[in-house]
Amino acid sequence: MKKIDVGVLGATGMVGQQFVARLEHHPWFHVSWLAASERSEGKRYDEASAWRLATPMPDAVRALSVDACIPGRGPKVVFSALDAGVAGEVEEAFARAGHIVLSNARNHRMDPLIPLLVPEVNSDHLAVLAEQRRAKGWSGAIVTNPNCSTVVLVMALAPLQRFGLKTAVVTTMQAASGAGYPGVPSYDILGNLVPFIGGEEEKIETETLKILGSDAGRTPHALVISSHANRVPVIDGHTMTVSVQVEAKAALGDVREAFRTFAGRPQELKLPTAPIPAILLRDEPNRPQPRLDADLGGGMAVSVGRLRPCPVLSFRFVALGHNTVRGAAGASILNAELMQAELQCLS
Amino acid sequence: MKKIDVGVLGATGMVGQQFVARLEHHPWFHVSWLAASERSEGKRYDEASAWRLATPMPDAVRALSVDACIPGRGPKVVFSALDAGVAGEVEEAFARAGHIVLSNARNHRMDPLIPLLVPEVNSDHLAVLAEQRRAKGWSGAIVTNPNCSTVVLVMALAPLQRFGLKTAVVTTMQAASGAGYPGVPSYDILGNLVPFIGGEEEKIETETLKILGSDAGRTPHALVISSHANRVPVIDGHTMTVSVQVEAKAALGDVREAFRTFAGRPQELKLPTAPIPAILLRDEPNRPQPRLDADLGGGMAVSVGRLRPCPVLSFRFVALGHNTVRGAAGASILNAELMQAELQCLS
Amino acid sequence: MKKIDVGVLGATGMVGQQFVARLEHHPWFHVSWLAASERSEGKRYDEASAWRLATPMPDAVRALSVDACIPGRGPKVVFSALDAGVAGEVEEAFARAGHIVLSNARNHRMDPLIPLLVPEVNSDHLAVLAEQRRAKGWSGAIVTNPNCSTVVLVMALAPLQRFGLKTAVVTTMQAASGAGYPGVPSYDILGNLVPFIGGEEEKIETETLKILGSDAGRTPHALVISSHANRVPVIDGHTMTVSVQVEAKAALGDVREAFRTFAGRPQELKLPTAPIPAILLRDEPNRPQPRLDADLGGGMAVSVGRLRPCPVLSFRFVALGHNTVRGAAGASILNAELMQAELQCLS
Amino acid sequence: MKKIDVGVLGATGMVGQQFVARLEHHPWFHVSWLAASERSEGKRYDEASAWRLATPMPDAVRALSVDACIPGRGPKVVFSALDAGVAGEVEEAFARAGHIVLSNARNHRMDPLIPLLVPEVNSDHLAVLAEQRRAKGWSGAIVTNPNCSTVVLVMALAPLQRFGLKTAVVTTMQAASGAGYPGVPSYDILGNLVPFIGGEEEKIETETLKILGSDAGRTPHALVISSHANRVPVIDGHTMTVSVQVEAKAALGDVREAFRTFAGRPQELKLPTAPIPAILLRDEPNRPQPRLDADLGGGMAVSVGRLRPCPVLSFRFVALGHNTVRGAAGASILNAELMQAELQCLS
Repeated sequence: MKKIDVGVLGATGMVGQQFVARLEHHPWFHVSWLAASERSEGKRYDEASAWRLATPMPDAVRALSVDACIPGRGPKVVFSALDAGVAGEVEEAFARAGHIVLSNARNHRMDPLIPLLVPEVNSDHLAVLAEQRRAKGWSGAIVTNPNCSTVVLVMALAPLQRFGLKTAVVTTMQAASGAGYPGVPSYDILGNLVPFIGGEEEKIETETLKILGSDAGRTPHALVISSHANRVPVIDGHTMTVSVQVEAKAALGDVREAFRTFAGRPQELKLPTAPIPAILLRDEPNRPQPRLDADLGGGMAVSVGRLRPCPVLSFRFVALGHNTVRGAAGASILNAELMQAELQCLS
Repeated sequence: MKKIDVGVLGATGMVGQQFVARLEHHPWFHVSWLAASERSEGKRYDEASAWRLATPMPDAVRALSVDACIPGRGPKVVFSALDAGVAGEVEEAFARAGHIVLSNARNHRMDPLIPLLVPEVNSDHLAVLAEQRRAKGWSGAIVTNPNCSTVVLVMALAPLQRFGLKTAVVTTMQAASGAGYPGVPSYDILGNLVPFIGGEEEKIETETLKILGSDAGRTPHALVISSHANRVPVIDGHTMTVSVQVEAKAALGDVREAFRTFAGRPQELKLPTAPIPAILLRDEPNRPQPRLDADLGGGMAVSVGRLRPCPVLSFRFVALGHNTVRGAAGASILNAELMQAELQCLS
Repeated sequence: MKKIDVGVLGATGMVGQQFVARLEHHPWFHVSWLAASERSEGKRYDEASAWRLATPMPDAVRALSVDACIPGRGPKVVFSALDAGVAGEVEEAFARAGHIVLSNARNHRMDPLIPLLVPEVNSDHLAVLAEQRRAKGWSGAIVTNPNCSTVVLVMALAPLQRFGLKTAVVTTMQAASGAGYPGVPSYDILGNLVPFIGGEEEKIETETLKILGSDAGRTPHALVISSHANRVPVIDGHTMTVSVQVEAKAALGDVREAFRTFAGRPQELKLPTAPIPAILLRDEPNRPQPRLDADLGGGMAVSVGRLRPCPVLSFRFVALGHNTVRGAAGASILNAELMQAELQCLS
Repeated sequence: MKKIDVGVLGATGMVGQQFVARLEHHPWFHVSWLAASERSEGKRYDEASAWRLATPMPDAVRALSVDACIPGRGPKVVFSALDAGVAGEVEEAFARAGHIVLSNARNHRMDPLIPLLVPEVNSDHLAVLAEQRRAKGWSGAIVTNPNCSTVVLVMALAPLQRFGLKTAVVTTMQAASGAGYPGVPSYDILGNLVPFIGGEEEKIETETLKILGSDAGRTPHALVISSHANRVPVIDGHTMTVSVQVEAKAALGDVREAFRTFAGRPQELKLPTAPIPAILLRDEPNRPQPRLDADLGGGMAVSVGRLRPCPVLSFRFVALGHNTVRGAAGASILNAELMQAELQCLS
């Protein structure tokens, strides 16, 4: 099969680099176009980009000439690693010009006509794309993935939907890499933690409801979430404690079973980057831990551990996921895989 | 006023060193006796003790000869920094022999005849001492202080008692120093966190109820607590997120006022190490932080921040306290100050 | 004695805050004037400054109105915490207008007419001030302190001057706070180190020679230094390994004695912030350590340890000093104290 | 080709686990026997071993029954991850009983009849094995690999041998994982560094000379090394600054070329875990960094950067290697590969 050409908007930044790195050996996609701000235009990618990842820059992109983010240039499929400051308008312009935009930015996530997609959880929300196209008048499309904490939470809550989700109290302990680059000053976080991340709690509390919602997310789930977001001196991996209340009188064993057997369309379709299992339920008392477990399933799986009854709500547990993989570039790529497998709309 | 001679059991360990350091300039107490395990017996303190604190070893104790932990030796008042493995029996033997034992160990905390004391919160629990003496047949006494997380939580919940505490969901992010020495291996915690601390959640969930309980703690408070304990790569200072449900329909301003005006017997009596204020309610969005705020009030104050409504329970906030000061040696010393001020029983 | 009014240029930044904090209870100086960039002009200091220190903002400065950095305004004595980008011109303008400028910036350090002062080491370099005034036509003056690594090294080398310093190979392990704020991104330094700090090695290798030089530094010392500068995930305190070659055939005991007895004009004059001793020679095998020892002498002392013969050069040891105290604000304040004590030129 | 059965002595410890993990997919070797202390004897490996690595325990070893370290049991080839406390006698007993012991312990490294092997550097030292067998009366053999810092240094010095190595001043910044498990207490290293590692400097200064020496290491190289060993809060990867003096008047370009073209027998023989290149010379000003570069070449390559003239000696640079791979289990495995390729003595 000929690979599908894809581009990356905001290719020189931290998330852009992650798109480039993770797409290097992708069986379906081939990075043929890199775009960034005007000051990088015309430069070779290896000159325009201060590479910050542990994996080396793929040789295939080193000499690519960086283009400006101008709709119409580049291939049909573009991944957007743009900052929220510019993502809103640029992504719309690309969709209008016929591009399929897989966006990691927060700007369009809550738009009722734009899917906020977690393929294991709400693959059916892709159905809104037809109306998106009609209402917006776009020949292309925009599909978004959630905030890096939201995706871990929603993956961990999805198996419990069958018991009737009522409330959840969540405390996140988020890695430094979640703040991008330069992100958190080291003076603020060495031997320290910061019990606040601007806008994060709101995203967790609202995005989750759209993803779990009905009518392609236009009717949010009735679940009520209270979240406490913290930055901790961890490199990669967002860990969170979750106490959750459910309607049904579920036994602990039922909940265990729900986690153990959880799978969604990516696993059914055997998408290239679908983690199998999607969720790993661990029995060790002191796991999951971000440094040991964030890379599970190529960084795409969510680890759940310490599942036990909650004396205040119904159950409590710890969930962990890789914030720059499952929570960013990897999420957009899985979204693209799902769209191609379900709709064949990328090729 | 002539100072009261005091001793330290387990003086060579980490908590023992903190007793020694914090008592150096104490206006009421004078360290005249240091005891440790038999292998230190007869050695000078500066030879027996591998000093690990940033503050230098007080000159006055350097040449003290370390004694064995034998009841009858040493002064009437002894602070116990013994490990739980030996604290149970040794402390009882000292109480039987007429010593007043201020214990930091967990062994006797839940004994209904032994006060689990937080002077700002339950100074009236000292009333059980008469019965303790009678029932145990001790000429001395044992008074304990809570676990290093419990004390921070209970200080932060105490001002809310007036609203009727019903439930609380708590997630702790605890400093490495809370595990003692050698404690957590660095390989486990560098750039990582561990979502489990053995026995910690049980202590938080039960000790708190005794401290807030009536009849000197023999009737536990009806509050139900769900706690999630985590170790994070912070040096000193336990931070925790708290969502709390109260019975009364309190306005946020009422809760603010409750925190701001909170004071207890230590503040009324102006005890030497009583923090004033006992609780500092902070308005900055990103405080308290352990590295910046743990030392507040000489490490004896608790910081509360991010107070806001909780969509699931009633209110939520962040609390922070110094785990090896307010959570260990400093707590025992404040207990001693209270006992002397209220009962004059130490001199 | 009436205190001398002093001002701070660049008062809202990290180093400016350190000046403000360290001057709070100074027995000779009183902060009466705070200046910063135009965007802070007219604001209260507590509104203009995002306070980042663990010690709280002094009450006395909270309501001070922040002025612009305009010569002629403010008191005769000003401490400069300006960034190198603007310090050059602004400091000169202040000196021209009659101010005594105690500068922490790098701009004028290597000017042969401007003292690069470490009071314990080259207090006689103040003699160049007469010529500075004449040649520059300034009614005021500029006096600088060295780079935060240089000052630690030069303090540790000064006692060895009597043996004839020939060469030194130095490797620094520098704290994150040395990079200012926001400084090093946490993503770069958590669980990592960076074996490069731009311009640092050049400063260490040249500033040291001026400070140890003769003719008020205009003839640099003949010592040859090779330095390797590294950033490590330490909060405060620059540690360095030093191998040094001397001309004389000194015994290890002579070198020990030289460190132990080292003192300079600040110690003779008993200046308010002079550390006594200036250097602490430690015998423990594993000290000095930045977290335990950087605060020695109020952060103004240098710790030396692990002194032993060097099989390649003559001797080797570890030196440590507090980079934001002895290496920045504290250094300028000690310079001011020396100038007032020796020349009475500040009042 | 049928794989060669191998065993691991000390299989339940940290280094033992690394042997097990790294041998999982080895093309030549198959782990068929795991031995540990008596208290593990008879248990399944997954019960006896508290697995601490990020990579999961290989399925193939989970159910293996752990044996005691008794010579004669187990296959001919055994890797030794034993602690120095027991390694000396046990390894000798195995060699006497006919086993080929690939040892990571320090006990026999300096024995003139036992090769201290770095395959890229001194593969010819295997020649001493004949005499070892004769003199010791062993039907088996012992081959050792160096200390985790030594191997990085010796790899970086080997290319410079052609210029005549005279002296080197080395400062190491070593990862926490180098201290084993539990190793360094987190309280000692969080936001801190320790400028001392017991015995480390002696190992670096002596092992290097044996490895670079002639007559199979029995005549040590004349190079004189001065080392400063430091523990820093890095997880994996030992970084070191090196200033080196050579006899020849080499141009910087010659040294660059020497690094770039360096290869040894493992590269010539294309051994399964031989890194290609053996040394990566980096041009970026701020590399190598342990978190980004330690895994290079599967953790078996050494990174060199910041190569520049040294004003005191001849040249200076930074070297980095993975301490638990190239510095431990990976080193022993490469030794085994070399022995099989050169001598066919393992099968």
